[in-house]
Amino acid sequence: MQSVRTAVVGASGYSGQELLHYLARHPVFKLALVAAKSTAGQKLAQIVHGLPKDLAAMEIIEAAADYSLAQKAELFFLAVPHGMAAPYVVALREAGKMVVDLSADFRTTDPAVYKEFYDHDHPAPALLKEAVYGIPEIHRDRLKSAKLIAAPGCFPTSIIVPLAPFLRAGWIEPDSIVSSSMSGASGAGRKVELRLLFGEVSDNMYAYSVPKHRHLGEIEQELSLAAGQKVTITFTPHIVPMHRGMLSTITARLKQTRADAEAHQLLLEAYGSEPFVEVLPPGELPQARHVAHSNRIQVAARIDPRTNRLLLFSSLDNLGKGNASQAVQAANLACGLEEKLGLE
Amino acid sequence: MQSVRTAVVGASGYSGQELLHYLARHPVFKLALVAAKSTAGQKLAQIVHGLPKDLAAMEIIEAAADYSLAQKAELFFLAVPHGMAAPYVVALREAGKMVVDLSADFRTTDPAVYKEFYDHDHPAPALLKEAVYGIPEIHRDRLKSAKLIAAPGCFPTSIIVPLAPFLRAGWIEPDSIVSSSMSGASGAGRKVELRLLFGEVSDNMYAYSVPKHRHLGEIEQELSLAAGQKVTITFTPHIVPMHRGMLSTITARLKQTRADAEAHQLLLEAYGSEPFVEVLPPGELPQARHVAHSNRIQVAARIDPRTNRLLLFSSLDNLGKGNASQAVQAANLACGLEEKLGLE
Amino acid sequence: MQSVRTAVVGASGYSGQELLHYLARHPVFKLALVAAKSTAGQKLAQIVHGLPKDLAAMEIIEAAADYSLAQKAELFFLAVPHGMAAPYVVALREAGKMVVDLSADFRTTDPAVYKEFYDHDHPAPALLKEAVYGIPEIHRDRLKSAKLIAAPGCFPTSIIVPLAPFLRAGWIEPDSIVSSSMSGASGAGRKVELRLLFGEVSDNMYAYSVPKHRHLGEIEQELSLAAGQKVTITFTPHIVPMHRGMLSTITARLKQTRADAEAHQLLLEAYGSEPFVEVLPPGELPQARHVAHSNRIQVAARIDPRTNRLLLFSSLDNLGKGNASQAVQAANLACGLEEKLGLE
Amino acid sequence: MQSVRTAVVGASGYSGQELLHYLARHPVFKLALVAAKSTAGQKLAQIVHGLPKDLAAMEIIEAAADYSLAQKAELFFLAVPHGMAAPYVVALREAGKMVVDLSADFRTTDPAVYKEFYDHDHPAPALLKEAVYGIPEIHRDRLKSAKLIAAPGCFPTSIIVPLAPFLRAGWIEPDSIVSSSMSGASGAGRKVELRLLFGEVSDNMYAYSVPKHRHLGEIEQELSLAAGQKVTITFTPHIVPMHRGMLSTITARLKQTRADAEAHQLLLEAYGSEPFVEVLPPGELPQARHVAHSNRIQVAARIDPRTNRLLLFSSLDNLGKGNASQAVQAANLACGLEEKLGLE
Repeated sequence: MQSVRTAVVGASGYSGQELLHYLARHPVFKLALVAAKSTAGQKLAQIVHGLPKDLAAMEIIEAAADYSLAQKAELFFLAVPHGMAAPYVVALREAGKMVVDLSADFRTTDPAVYKEFYDHDHPAPALLKEAVYGIPEIHRDRLKSAKLIAAPGCFPTSIIVPLAPFLRAGWIEPDSIVSSSMSGASGAGRKVELRLLFGEVSDNMYAYSVPKHRHLGEIEQELSLAAGQKVTITFTPHIVPMHRGMLSTITARLKQTRADAEAHQLLLEAYGSEPFVEVLPPGELPQARHVAHSNRIQVAARIDPRTNRLLLFSSLDNLGKGNASQAVQAANLACGLEEKLGLE
Repeated sequence: MQSVRTAVVGASGYSGQELLHYLARHPVFKLALVAAKSTAGQKLAQIVHGLPKDLAAMEIIEAAADYSLAQKAELFFLAVPHGMAAPYVVALREAGKMVVDLSADFRTTDPAVYKEFYDHDHPAPALLKEAVYGIPEIHRDRLKSAKLIAAPGCFPTSIIVPLAPFLRAGWIEPDSIVSSSMSGASGAGRKVELRLLFGEVSDNMYAYSVPKHRHLGEIEQELSLAAGQKVTITFTPHIVPMHRGMLSTITARLKQTRADAEAHQLLLEAYGSEPFVEVLPPGELPQARHVAHSNRIQVAARIDPRTNRLLLFSSLDNLGKGNASQAVQAANLACGLEEKLGLE
Repeated sequence: MQSVRTAVVGASGYSGQELLHYLARHPVFKLALVAAKSTAGQKLAQIVHGLPKDLAAMEIIEAAADYSLAQKAELFFLAVPHGMAAPYVVALREAGKMVVDLSADFRTTDPAVYKEFYDHDHPAPALLKEAVYGIPEIHRDRLKSAKLIAAPGCFPTSIIVPLAPFLRAGWIEPDSIVSSSMSGASGAGRKVELRLLFGEVSDNMYAYSVPKHRHLGEIEQELSLAAGQKVTITFTPHIVPMHRGMLSTITARLKQTRADAEAHQLLLEAYGSEPFVEVLPPGELPQARHVAHSNRIQVAARIDPRTNRLLLFSSLDNLGKGNASQAVQAANLACGLEEKLGLE
Repeated sequence: MQSVRTAVVGASGYSGQELLHYLARHPVFKLALVAAKSTAGQKLAQIVHGLPKDLAAMEIIEAAADYSLAQKAELFFLAVPHGMAAPYVVALREAGKMVVDLSADFRTTDPAVYKEFYDHDHPAPALLKEAVYGIPEIHRDRLKSAKLIAAPGCFPTSIIVPLAPFLRAGWIEPDSIVSSSMSGASGAGRKVELRLLFGEVSDNMYAYSVPKHRHLGEIEQELSLAAGQKVTITFTPHIVPMHRGMLSTITARLKQTRADAEAHQLLLEAYGSEPFVEVLPPGELPQARHVAHSNRIQVAARIDPRTNRLLLFSSLDNLGKGNASQAVQAANLACGLEEKLGLE
């Protein structure tokens, strides 16, 4: 296979580091450059450990959202903070390059929803139509011809994947969905803030950003798509004392009585042939440790007959299937490659 | 004050150890004996660290549910495994002694509910009527004359305390309650089981015992009492990688539109003068670290106007307010003592 | 007992927070004020959790090293960063107040040693003679009349306490001492630095500041005092993934063959009657968990007959006996109080 | 390349699980069977997560040290508990098969040393001569023709690799070596024991097995080989609260004054071209997190001019370079394959 010259913009955060690990072992995406702001001039070895020697010696160049950058590669992964990706996307798309944006900038297709959740007008609304939301299990066909991929967040992936089949099948009351989601601390990024110190996170846990976390917009957009009607949910994110990992526990009222076996069967029909979705056998529930350092998501369904609710559970690595590796999976599709390349 | 000769039965688990720490600094409850099965013959120093030297040197006697045991103290704390407490309670109550049972044996007042959740007939149903459920903030008056206190579990305390005021006030739809609760691993006890090894719990989290955890019976009993009608909830317990700590995130549909300030006010009215309930100021949410090694419970309420739901949050130490220290608080009341004795 | 008006200067770090917890339950030291720089104007409740309500409501005043501060209390604990304490000490000692300095500023009695380890002249060398190094088990008599207490660091306490008896008894070659010491991350302070993020500390450990950690000066000063001759050691500090705790493993060559029982006996003679030193029975070794949240230090000695070395082990809470609680213990002595007051 | 039929005996421990992960991605070693005692009859998916679907479905067969087992593969990895490997080795070597034994059974070449450290006669002393100690950086040439590889332990690897060059070069006093080594809890195995519960290991650390840990025999054997004379060391192992990771801090007296640059240079000469040894640049020290989930070992050297000691530091993954992946590296050599196969 011919290699694809690949660039990473933004590399000092946990997403960027994880992405570099996945790209280092990808047989087709060949890292041509890494651009960043705060770490420009450093070698990759100074910010990421365990890279092959040639990559370790690569020097990070100064990131600039311009024509010159666009000439240096064919495929661009943007791992910059939310709100910083748009100028790069504009410049790179003008130059005709393929872009996988790991930030939240292009995840909501409706500029009004973007404004509702981010409190300012979208900086490049014309490109929103072009962006494809990067969950391959949901948007595989559109991803195959995508030029701009909005790689989803970890909370959204952990909620959308288990819920979508049940919304599509019309099993549940759309206004009854409640998700309680727990994230390892790396989900908050590699920010130098007091609340992220070991002394504050270890032996601790808490809910935050209620009732309207910023990623709720993209979650409800995708759930509404699956349901074919507007879906609004209650979503509570939590931080728990571990570095990587995410667990979502989702409940929803059933429209009619269902059995465990039916729910399991529906998950199997939706995802039984998916390489990265592990539909757990009846009796088993997802565990964060089982999917760490992987692109897999574990899902399980149970019925609570006492309250006539569906219980859904999912587990993923918030830096893997919830972030960097799913971005690679989507890029594989967009580049016409075998979807699993570099991910096993 | 005159001291009260106090006994602890069962001392090798995390609850028993924690109880010994609280009793060691209690000014009235004087530890007269510790009885246990597996650790009989050992000194307390071998199972608990940091006790004063006189207690550390005390020898654990062989536990037997008989008349002889009952003669040795006035107040008995039972920290034996679920299902093992009943014979002790029978023997001790026959001898007229005051009993605080930390097991689940006497928490459900209805023998049918006990059978539903524990799969066998209650071994001493006659005593169920006498038992008082040991949350002082809910049953203070009855506890003042209690002779048999059923100390509640950690999950129940974390759910009942924040919900009770809203059920009493009729704010929420009783069939809409969903609780997602996270427990430190000590909540599973000090059992020598593979699933509790450091290598299985660290960097891991998972839901378990769905949809019908054994403590759901006592939770629904107390919520129904508060609501004045039958309440059935969906409850998902989780294990997270920390030793002590518990967080509950509870959602319920509001009967009518409410504001954050109203919800906060209702919590303040219920608990503003409680010494061990910390109603957090608007904008703050409970954190597990803030209540570790204490008898305090943090509670907070928020309204989700998008879905018209009430969100409740609570945090406690599953070995403290969720277990040993709350048992001491209840015993203080039952002995006519200042409720805070030995707990600050 | 008459209460002592007590002030804490510096309160936003882990030491200051811990100190406030110990002072909150001290029966004689009554907190009269808390002064700080970055948190001035806040209530104590905003920086420390679990304080009694009256303390929680106390407002932090602006810290200034002047006469006005000195008038507000009789006893001052300084929990400011290293290098910042000297001006306060000068002002407070001029006003005749008793000072317990938790920083390193007055720990080395020789200004030349201070300069060697801190790279600048000591700002108040005249006061160095007055300062008493605050390990009660080593300097109890001098502490009884101390007006300026240099509270020692956690590494020094964990090394000096186990070694001193063996140096005094002349058992070991003074140039053969090697200490490998592991600290929980709170030992690095509550600094907002990348290296202290949960994502960098969890699942990690490393040595640092070799071969000449700043606290080596005070360690060698105290070891030399015990030995009656100059002692120079090799000391390697490590950070391990826990919040509080410290373990030191110390080896030294024996001058002559010794048995385990002799080494244990020497520790017993030195510390058998000390309330806060736990000389472990033969066969047991110190554990960090056993002394967490306490003023205790565990010590144990073993002989390695194969290499004719003495092995010493110690464990303490780096925020407790290694810091805040030991400062209270020393202050008790200096104020003529029962040494254990507020510490059990 | 032609594939090699490969078997794993023993698979329920952490070593066995890790080994299966490395073998699953090895391009030449093809897993033909997994045999075990306690998990026989289960599918691999029940004991290891994240394997490819074909391997996940493989059924574990009953392990028996007999001729029949030997016929099923060409290359056998033994991941059974210490003391259990010998019968398998005898049967497999009689059948002419290549064996990589991850237990300690064949690591000491001298039966007398085996008896000293394991308290019983070696069960197959005739095979000790044949066994090659499996650190490729030390015994590469012998490993190329090895039929029986004694894969070393994690503590030994972390000590032997950094020390060997300095012993060979005659820099240090052989009787002055002290190693303080910290291991993640997985180093103690996946044993269902009280001391390994999360509640006992988290927020804890301690030394153990002093002064004569069982792996001291193999450590001193290899250090003596490097030194060309008998070397006896003081070694203190510790458990720290993390799952995987190992750090060794080693000190030794220098025979003459040396500079940091010389020590660094000696490490570079020894390991500069090694693919899995990372000689850290001056000023950097090994970190456990940097080598997790890899076959790499980080090493660094520093001089302590105040005490004329050499300080050596190493970091490895106790399940990786300290165990499973190093076993694969050695097997690659013995099979005439590229040494890095399946390890990057």
